[in-house]
Amino acid sequence: MTVIRTEPLTAAAFAPFGDVLDASGTPDKIINQGLCGRYHDRARMDFGPDGRVGISIFQAEARALPYTLDLVERHPDGSQAFVPMTADAFLVIVAEDQDGTPANIRAFLTAPGQGINLLRNTWHGVLTPLAAPGLFAVIDRIGSTPNLQEYPLRQPRTVIAG
Amino acid sequence: MTVIRTEPLTAAAFAPFGDVLDASGTPDKIINQGLCGRYHDRARMDFGPDGRVGISIFQAEARALPYTLDLVERHPDGSQAFVPMTADAFLVIVAEDQDGTPANIRAFLTAPGQGINLLRNTWHGVLTPLAAPGLFAVIDRIGSTPNLQEYPLRQPRTVIAG
Repeated sequence: MTVIRTEPLTAAAFAPFGDVLDASGTPDKIINQGLCGRYHDRARMDFGPDGRVGISIFQAEARALPYTLDLVERHPDGSQAFVPMTADAFLVIVAEDQDGTPANIRAFLTAPGQGINLLRNTWHGVLTPLAAPGLFAVIDRIGSTPNLQEYPLRQPRTVIAG
Repeated sequence: MTVIRTEPLTAAAFAPFGDVLDASGTPDKIINQGLCGRYHDRARMDFGPDGRVGISIFQAEARALPYTLDLVERHPDGSQAFVPMTADAFLVIVAEDQDGTPANIRAFLTAPGQGINLLRNTWHGVLTPLAAPGLFAVIDRIGSTPNLQEYPLRQPRTVIAG
């Protein structure tokens, strides 16, 4: 089975797929009498002409490495952000698109304190926390379309720690 | 000094001020082949005609109880959600409005796994984590107006554990 090694999640490596949501670098603004740093407007969100933004809570079962990946999916109508509500790392699987097909699948391992925003129509694996309770705030498109394309992998991959 | 005792954060008690973002009750939808529950569209967001939504990261210094409250503020142009990126409780201070002035100030203590969304123009205290690193994703309005009204309290309050 083809093996994918995890990479650390960095803004530069992840940029083609989306945004890393964390407090790295210098805050854009200091507020609340010096007691709070604001890292401003870090997600490239896009919900299309007929959608609106919503906040939902996802609770997903914890997975472990090695992890068998047999499906990726994408949301053609909107971006989707995942904010972990615990300090645990999670697995972020993404892929490029080649003529409507996922290609060059990559797996990123977050550091505590990192969330992500997936650009609209980016191939990705389902939510894969690596620790219970697997609790996330998800900021994505609310709309009436199915907004989901699934792609089962004929050849599953094994994701292992990099 | 007037004392305010903290209350547990519940959706019913908090409803006049905003929404509790958590995984309580039954998921609205089960996704990802049964491995994830979606608690759907839990925030009453409102960014006005000239604003858009953004995700920012706040890192705030941890406070402790008893906490001295000497200022509340509100955002006239948009709602504001706070999603903790750790499993730590934080303090949520809100107030009613009476003719443009905050009244009946209340303090809620979150449980781990709870975030909040403040309705547009709701009086509230600044972000007050009770543990380091005080890391939150903030989903609020991005726009060109100041969108901030501060109200220093002539008579500060002391918030104590309820």
